[in-house]
Amino acid sequence: MTNSQLTLVQIDNYGPWTVTPEPRREMDLQTLQSRLFADLAQFVGSRDGYVFFTRFDNMVAITNGLDADDHRLLQETIGNRYPVTISLGTGIDASPVEALEAATAGLQHAGSAQDGDRREVLSGEFLAEPERTSSDVQIAHFDVNDATGKYTDQLNEFDSFIQIEQGYATLMRYLREEYGALSFFVGGDNIISICPAMDGDDYRDAIDHVEAEAGVELKVGVGVASNPHVAGMDAKHALETCRHEGTVVELSRPVDEVGITTD
Amino acid sequence: MTNSQLTLVQIDNYGPWTVTPEPRREMDLQTLQSRLFADLAQFVGSRDGYVFFTRFDNMVAITNGLDADDHRLLQETIGNRYPVTISLGTGIDASPVEALEAATAGLQHAGSAQDGDRREVLSGEFLAEPERTSSDVQIAHFDVNDATGKYTDQLNEFDSFIQIEQGYATLMRYLREEYGALSFFVGGDNIISICPAMDGDDYRDAIDHVEAEAGVELKVGVGVASNPHVAGMDAKHALETCRHEGTVVELSRPVDEVGITTD
Amino acid sequence: MTNSQLTLVQIDNYGPWTVTPEPRREMDLQTLQSRLFADLAQFVGSRDGYVFFTRFDNMVAITNGLDADDHRLLQETIGNRYPVTISLGTGIDASPVEALEAATAGLQHAGSAQDGDRREVLSGEFLAEPERTSSDVQIAHFDVNDATGKYTDQLNEFDSFIQIEQGYATLMRYLREEYGALSFFVGGDNIISICPAMDGDDYRDAIDHVEAEAGVELKVGVGVASNPHVAGMDAKHALETCRHEGTVVELSRPVDEVGITTD
Amino acid sequence: MTNSQLTLVQIDNYGPWTVTPEPRREMDLQTLQSRLFADLAQFVGSRDGYVFFTRFDNMVAITNGLDADDHRLLQETIGNRYPVTISLGTGIDASPVEALEAATAGLQHAGSAQDGDRREVLSGEFLAEPERTSSDVQIAHFDVNDATGKYTDQLNEFDSFIQIEQGYATLMRYLREEYGALSFFVGGDNIISICPAMDGDDYRDAIDHVEAEAGVELKVGVGVASNPHVAGMDAKHALETCRHEGTVVELSRPVDEVGITTD
Repeated sequence: MTNSQLTLVQIDNYGPWTVTPEPRREMDLQTLQSRLFADLAQFVGSRDGYVFFTRFDNMVAITNGLDADDHRLLQETIGNRYPVTISLGTGIDASPVEALEAATAGLQHAGSAQDGDRREVLSGEFLAEPERTSSDVQIAHFDVNDATGKYTDQLNEFDSFIQIEQGYATLMRYLREEYGALSFFVGGDNIISICPAMDGDDYRDAIDHVEAEAGVELKVGVGVASNPHVAGMDAKHALETCRHEGTVVELSRPVDEVGITTD
Repeated sequence: MTNSQLTLVQIDNYGPWTVTPEPRREMDLQTLQSRLFADLAQFVGSRDGYVFFTRFDNMVAITNGLDADDHRLLQETIGNRYPVTISLGTGIDASPVEALEAATAGLQHAGSAQDGDRREVLSGEFLAEPERTSSDVQIAHFDVNDATGKYTDQLNEFDSFIQIEQGYATLMRYLREEYGALSFFVGGDNIISICPAMDGDDYRDAIDHVEAEAGVELKVGVGVASNPHVAGMDAKHALETCRHEGTVVELSRPVDEVGITTD
Repeated sequence: MTNSQLTLVQIDNYGPWTVTPEPRREMDLQTLQSRLFADLAQFVGSRDGYVFFTRFDNMVAITNGLDADDHRLLQETIGNRYPVTISLGTGIDASPVEALEAATAGLQHAGSAQDGDRREVLSGEFLAEPERTSSDVQIAHFDVNDATGKYTDQLNEFDSFIQIEQGYATLMRYLREEYGALSFFVGGDNIISICPAMDGDDYRDAIDHVEAEAGVELKVGVGVASNPHVAGMDAKHALETCRHEGTVVELSRPVDEVGITTD
Repeated sequence: MTNSQLTLVQIDNYGPWTVTPEPRREMDLQTLQSRLFADLAQFVGSRDGYVFFTRFDNMVAITNGLDADDHRLLQETIGNRYPVTISLGTGIDASPVEALEAATAGLQHAGSAQDGDRREVLSGEFLAEPERTSSDVQIAHFDVNDATGKYTDQLNEFDSFIQIEQGYATLMRYLREEYGALSFFVGGDNIISICPAMDGDDYRDAIDHVEAEAGVELKVGVGVASNPHVAGMDAKHALETCRHEGTVVELSRPVDEVGITTD
């Protein structure tokens, strides 16, 4: 069984800030959002976690390996260097969406995202070291079969983009509804999902569903480890195996070893 | 009539680079992609253009106001500071998707996105100053009605995100198919579209369609100018008018003045 | 004769901000300062100007080619993305130090650098396009002879650093006192100086002085153009000529052509 | 007694890279150097170390608290995101300059800084956790008395800068020669020194020397801890005490408690 520690990162009072005293230059907002995300990616990533840009004012991270002090420091360093501050809520559950539910609720209880007074909330629970196991985090890395040949080198970029988006939108809804898994588009033709314990058949079903519904063909590599970086790197290697072997679903060895079954 | 200059920014040989000699840390790829986008946002944005992260390895920009020398310099500065290089293709048309079609074709003719030898292509045509008019660029800025109250403060972040994604996916397909407009999610609950000449009824139709299909309620502010920054800033102000007046579609004064009609 | 447009960039109220409500993490201050400088380098550099980090809370730029609107935009974009704001003062003179004197005075008249109320001053004069000539900017690029062989590969880094600093400190004082030139260490063993019209003998004298006083051997390439980027690039190429020919002072052709003499 | 772990960060083959195939735009080099330093500041700083920009192609860090894996990861993440790579050499000694000597030697043995083949060296020893004590790191934070009143608000920026540089150059040489301490200008009117065990009289002597030699009046706060961040933060607070009490040298309580004496 997995045990995901999810952290919600929410910029405090961002909507009002972007239009006060007047609307700000859009490209400056894009720059600020992207660089804030990049800093989170470095802080969390160098501690073996993963963070996804999601909506930029709200970002989802899987933080197995980061404790309360890490979260406190992250909040402090962002507050020192940006014109905005962030609130952090964390939750733990075998089901990724349940963990995120708890993380989100922690912030909602403290106040609205646009509450002029709510700043730098730090809420939730953190996995204690002795409780961590090598099956806590399951990461699936999907990509589109021959995206370059089928889309990028054939269609105009927006029509390629629409295709990838359809595949993503379909996968994200299906995995969330069937398994409570959380899926994120990460660029190019890649989607990374935070999954509960799922097996090869579960992934095959998901891929069949996306092909039937959206006409987009995916393949997937899956990894399991105590932290997102190791699980995700195993997933990347498994995906390379798909690429070389022509297979559709590859589970890295640790997945088999820990006897993952669907819950 | 509009006259959009669209530029496609494509990272050369990125897929292979990310896995050679071995897959790279995912959070480092996220950081690189985001910071590259941020630099494009600053370069293009400070010249009054707009750029959208799109798929990160392929990014769409509307560059009315940037000439060939600007594009050449952008390519050079990125090449000096990143471990990857970019190719730039530009096209011009009253229809945004047609302009992007031309921009994309320019790169495709030079070689595949994953061609080991194709580097730093610079192709296409650029609007000459004497040809530019104050109706060249039409920008629509949509946001979701009371996203904070309905989603952010109520649901877990992923379910909020799914809602926003549904609204975006529906709007993006509809506007592209009906008008050749190109729509981009820009964070929070905001979508910015590069539009051809469209009027108030066209926007009302689009909003009705999204509500019927995805259950997501949008409002929109629209601006028209010779460059994206001015058009987009007018659109933001028009959106503030929607917010204060409780309206659904607001066209900033220049839109009326230049007598925009649907094509 | 040269005609330098110097801009002083000063962070508003920075000293107090760094310790309010309490002292901030030093590495966060270093990060903020460096990234703010990097953004200035990109904005000014892509418009063919040069900016030097100087003291980080006060930075000196030579901005021939940037007008009032450019300065205003620079101020706005920094204000949108950082937790601090900047004031900009600009001055023009054949003598670089006189131009900087005027630039600094513009800010000093508006209020102290630590005045709690003084924010985003924009003062001074800007070179009008018709007044610009190809001899406005003279840039000298010095480096230390065989720094790698003599210092970097021989001494511990701090003792190498002390040597380079001695050379820099001596050169900066001499060129300012003799010619009103402004010299900046730019990394490695490189120093770039903003000079008035000076000739080959002037540079030889300066190099002899530094060798006698500090025991550090320099060579120099010099360029002249209407803007810092072109003058500086010519200076770099001239320095490469020194490196290949074994010479000590090289003036790029435009310097000779415009008949530069010492004032 | 102190026990400093010093790391030298050296960009591999940087000189040649900056001019191959041709000299690169100076402002792009400044941007790359500053952002690389900023990333080091975040990585090292979030692990409670300090890093100083020094010469940018060679940077000095005090890394008590960072182990071999941390150094390896730092090297990997930089290699993934920049067009250059870094070599890291680490040394440990009660004397900061001796520690840096060992760190530098580790790189020099592996090859020249401009050796076309030497890439990503990782050499040296790292303090084991059980060996660390609360007196390992002594940090002194100097600033210039009333720099704003005496210099910034009175002189042009370059003449202010010359004054600060004189004070820095004098202090850096004196502390290195007398104590093997390493001093770094960190912006504004601030200098941070990595010191061995020194007492209040030692600091008073240094301040007297700088006033006599360079005419610049300094004050100093000193901290001691097991890591640079805590020692440095204590030093900042001690400096605030100087500012409020009108004193010249303040040692934070831990300095007294661990009975620091000159060696």
